[in-house]
Amino acid sequence: MKIAFIIFNEITWLDLIGVYDAIFRLKHMNFVPGLEWDICAQTNLAADHYGLTIIPNKINQPLDSYDVIIVPGGYGTRTLTNDENFVNWIRTAQNAKWKISICTGSLILGAAGFLKNKKATTHFSEYETLKLFCKEVSEDRIVEDGDTITAGAVSSSLDLGLYLSRKWAGDEAAKIIRERMAYHG
Amino acid sequence: MKIAFIIFNEITWLDLIGVYDAIFRLKHMNFVPGLEWDICAQTNLAADHYGLTIIPNKINQPLDSYDVIIVPGGYGTRTLTNDENFVNWIRTAQNAKWKISICTGSLILGAAGFLKNKKATTHFSEYETLKLFCKEVSEDRIVEDGDTITAGAVSSSLDLGLYLSRKWAGDEAAKIIRERMAYHG
Repeated sequence: MKIAFIIFNEITWLDLIGVYDAIFRLKHMNFVPGLEWDICAQTNLAADHYGLTIIPNKINQPLDSYDVIIVPGGYGTRTLTNDENFVNWIRTAQNAKWKISICTGSLILGAAGFLKNKKATTHFSEYETLKLFCKEVSEDRIVEDGDTITAGAVSSSLDLGLYLSRKWAGDEAAKIIRERMAYHG
Repeated sequence: MKIAFIIFNEITWLDLIGVYDAIFRLKHMNFVPGLEWDICAQTNLAADHYGLTIIPNKINQPLDSYDVIIVPGGYGTRTLTNDENFVNWIRTAQNAKWKISICTGSLILGAAGFLKNKKATTHFSEYETLKLFCKEVSEDRIVEDGDTITAGAVSSSLDLGLYLSRKWAGDEAAKIIRERMAYHG
């Protein structure tokens, strides 16, 4: 299974790192054999509002070889949903088995057309914006509908990590990972 | 208030980003006027076990000008606690008003001598190691003792962020930040 983590400027890093932590453990404990990922961006670097910078290892490469795409949120999504070049890049993941988002990352999935006729969620302050892109907005913390899984605001990224652990490796693996993270949320 | 976030190779990124998220919001909502930080390392880059890389903005600079030092954990701490050059660098923060750690970051504070005669905590798998460096090991999620604040395993980093929000900006600020993060842990 090959995952593309999408990063961009004005991202919320906890949206990424919350889910990443569980996925890191899925690989480290070999709960999902062959699990791999890339950190993908259109830019050489991606920084948040105050300059904390992560280096992507794939820059502006098509996303058509990934089984999973994971899109975090952040202020940057406000402009990126209107950035045709960026949205077209996200669209190259259209055949991915799972399109996953955290927080306002769902607006990017939405702009790419992935949430059409779907139930989805986002940060609670952006429910109205999300309505433009999907069939039904849910206030649930995690919403799965077909090939899309959307999570709510920031800290729900940790819950998403455990949700995916359960989905991809079973209850016992998710329980062990939750214990290692000491997460009781 | 000026914070040094310490990063290193083989770090657990959620240890850093969990507490960072709340501190980012403290600044963004101007709850702590003059709040600033640097991402400090001894190396040009810091990567976790699978290569996710953050760029520090201060490399091998003394830590004596910071009010706060925050040290995350990770596998890297196993060798760093025996790396005299690294530990001496951490010791340059000895006059910081608060020395703070997450997870096995407390072993680094301990190796630097900051936990002498203190009560402290760490990842639950490292209580025995921590005993070498402090007076009393606590199983609490967050332990404050004088100028040190130590947090437990990984996800307690989010709790630490809210703990510091309350400490530095009051209950109301912490409540607002918790709501924005949608964190109920």
